[in-house]
Amino acid sequence: MKQQLLFERPEFATRLAAVKKEMGKRGIDILLLSEPPNQNYLTGYDAYSFYTPQMVIVALKHEEPIWVGRFMDRVSAVMTTYLADGNIRAYKDEYVHSATLSAYDFMADLVKELGGERARIGVEMGGYYYSARAHADLVRALPLAQFVDADLLVNWIRIVKSSAELALMRQAGRIADAMVQRAVDTIAPGVRECDIAAAIYHQQMAGTPDFGGSYGCACLMLGVAERALAPHAAWTDKPLPASTTVYMEVHGNRLRYQVQLGRTVSVGKPSTAYQKLADISVEALNAGLDSVRPGRTCSDVDGAFRRALARHGLEKEARLGYSIGVGYPPSVGERTASLRKGDETVLQPGMCFHMMPGLWLDDVSIAITQSFAVTDSGHEALSSTPRTLFVK
Amino acid sequence: MKQQLLFERPEFATRLAAVKKEMGKRGIDILLLSEPPNQNYLTGYDAYSFYTPQMVIVALKHEEPIWVGRFMDRVSAVMTTYLADGNIRAYKDEYVHSATLSAYDFMADLVKELGGERARIGVEMGGYYYSARAHADLVRALPLAQFVDADLLVNWIRIVKSSAELALMRQAGRIADAMVQRAVDTIAPGVRECDIAAAIYHQQMAGTPDFGGSYGCACLMLGVAERALAPHAAWTDKPLPASTTVYMEVHGNRLRYQVQLGRTVSVGKPSTAYQKLADISVEALNAGLDSVRPGRTCSDVDGAFRRALARHGLEKEARLGYSIGVGYPPSVGERTASLRKGDETVLQPGMCFHMMPGLWLDDVSIAITQSFAVTDSGHEALSSTPRTLFVK
Repeated sequence: MKQQLLFERPEFATRLAAVKKEMGKRGIDILLLSEPPNQNYLTGYDAYSFYTPQMVIVALKHEEPIWVGRFMDRVSAVMTTYLADGNIRAYKDEYVHSATLSAYDFMADLVKELGGERARIGVEMGGYYYSARAHADLVRALPLAQFVDADLLVNWIRIVKSSAELALMRQAGRIADAMVQRAVDTIAPGVRECDIAAAIYHQQMAGTPDFGGSYGCACLMLGVAERALAPHAAWTDKPLPASTTVYMEVHGNRLRYQVQLGRTVSVGKPSTAYQKLADISVEALNAGLDSVRPGRTCSDVDGAFRRALARHGLEKEARLGYSIGVGYPPSVGERTASLRKGDETVLQPGMCFHMMPGLWLDDVSIAITQSFAVTDSGHEALSSTPRTLFVK
Repeated sequence: MKQQLLFERPEFATRLAAVKKEMGKRGIDILLLSEPPNQNYLTGYDAYSFYTPQMVIVALKHEEPIWVGRFMDRVSAVMTTYLADGNIRAYKDEYVHSATLSAYDFMADLVKELGGERARIGVEMGGYYYSARAHADLVRALPLAQFVDADLLVNWIRIVKSSAELALMRQAGRIADAMVQRAVDTIAPGVRECDIAAAIYHQQMAGTPDFGGSYGCACLMLGVAERALAPHAAWTDKPLPASTTVYMEVHGNRLRYQVQLGRTVSVGKPSTAYQKLADISVEALNAGLDSVRPGRTCSDVDGAFRRALARHGLEKEARLGYSIGVGYPPSVGERTASLRKGDETVLQPGMCFHMMPGLWLDDVSIAITQSFAVTDSGHEALSSTPRTLFVK
């Protein structure tokens, strides 16, 4: 039943060693990882099961990580991880959405079994899957332990991708390219917005003839006309008018590695002013990309972009971009480095970002974006869709 | 820019009144709602923006709820809610994924503005979007307030659907039917798993000729052969063999209202033993459905199902089902009533459930499921796909 692991065993070993080293530095004995991408990164675990309590436990004194989750997801742990059978632990179904039982009691018992009753325990305080209740339950069940915030500890390690990971990012980028192409092919006056979404989703999962795609870390962003002013609005089932703009952010996903790609499509000939805005946006995007070098900071790149934009009298409120990689819903980013003023993260080869110079002005918006990897000498684009305003 | 509201204003008023009444009963002055479906239920707010801090605040002394979120999502609040402009509040982008700033400080200031410095404040301790850090930040910023757990307060109110909501659930069911039909049409030896997923997703968004669909509250569940033993495994891009089983759980979603539908498809003629297992599963499913009546409990329904199963010497470990309705990722259920032994929730007309009698045995699995609404005299099926093992 064991599937082939996505990465070689030595790669998993390197990742685990890096995490344990950082735990040692911070004096953390036991690390409770609630974030699905971190669980995947350290063990290979992959299933859509994180909506019930689930952890990967790393103990300095225990060689392998331990996966703990719901009984029916045990089989996914067996299939997708390298973990020994004894390091896959599951709680009974009666714990799920129970008013009286807490799966965190089960996990606390496991911590005790690892000798962690008085340990210094790291938890991901700001994670999506570590609720206020989860923390309260663990603190109650382990009153002698000391809890410390280890949020982003693993995220900051996985921000630098290995060559095997970069190969997956490139495949994700090829899927994203195919999705935008499919969208541009589909967009036409009279086509319902939901049918454009349908075509894009179809391409997302079909991927390419060489490899398939997977579900995204967020829904497709697809906004038409005034809804294009709302970056995260839902699409409707209205037909496209003869003249409008369509904004999309697509999520090419290859085995949980994700590349984002945003484009605006003008249905009908764009106004001169709008075409000019698109040109400025691309000019600033390229200025940002051209400034990428190992050794420079996220803030430097943001500055290069903003200076190019300012030459045309424009500003952008939001950050310019964010780190990307392996992920699960609800978030497309890694929650680590942002391309923004004041973020002094130093760029290193293997880091990947989505540069997102979307301009959401009062009455129009434009978004022509680029995901890239930092290389030894600059950057590598992770998708090859032309940086232009598409016109249909 | 205002969109048409999904429900009439009096319906929103009724919902808010019910929530305020419950707050009064519990002595809660201010309720901080972090769960996206609860935000949608009370205000209409709809956008994929909940991955950054976002709240709907209900104060007993303030007539309307207040939406608070990221500046770029303000426009979605204007478009999708009935809230007055002053009740839509947004924090600056610098709060997003910041190492130094917390959006919860911004929210705490808003609570103070509402006179809530010493209030009794309800929070959703077990929610997906209320992290341990969110709680710690709020408690720090409001040291004189008293925090109480109000998790599921709104969920237990929205468990009973209005007729307008039931109309959307029926539409979601029609989409789910179309998705399964499309899957059955697509499944054939040699077809890649990812291309089956692509066809299903296409149908999900395309919906029907009369109305479109939307993204689900979870990814499609699609498991082939031994992966059909893992309820939440990801699909692959391998071609289907000449003889296998395909398990799917599809999510028909209409304007965030979701109906689940699970079916197993046998590729090639099933063995006599497997067909028998399917027949037993359907018999037990029907026994469960036939037992649904207002006034009976969730536990009663579970018992009727289990007795039918036990007649064939079979058992099911997991709960039989769970309440469904409006939702957002990551979870398809409402986290309230479960169809399981000991759940004494009394069925009322308007409650909706996904009855999920999946059997995950050691070497085979079968899942033929049914979503339904409780009616005045029994139940109404929310999808019309035949309850049978499909054979291709």
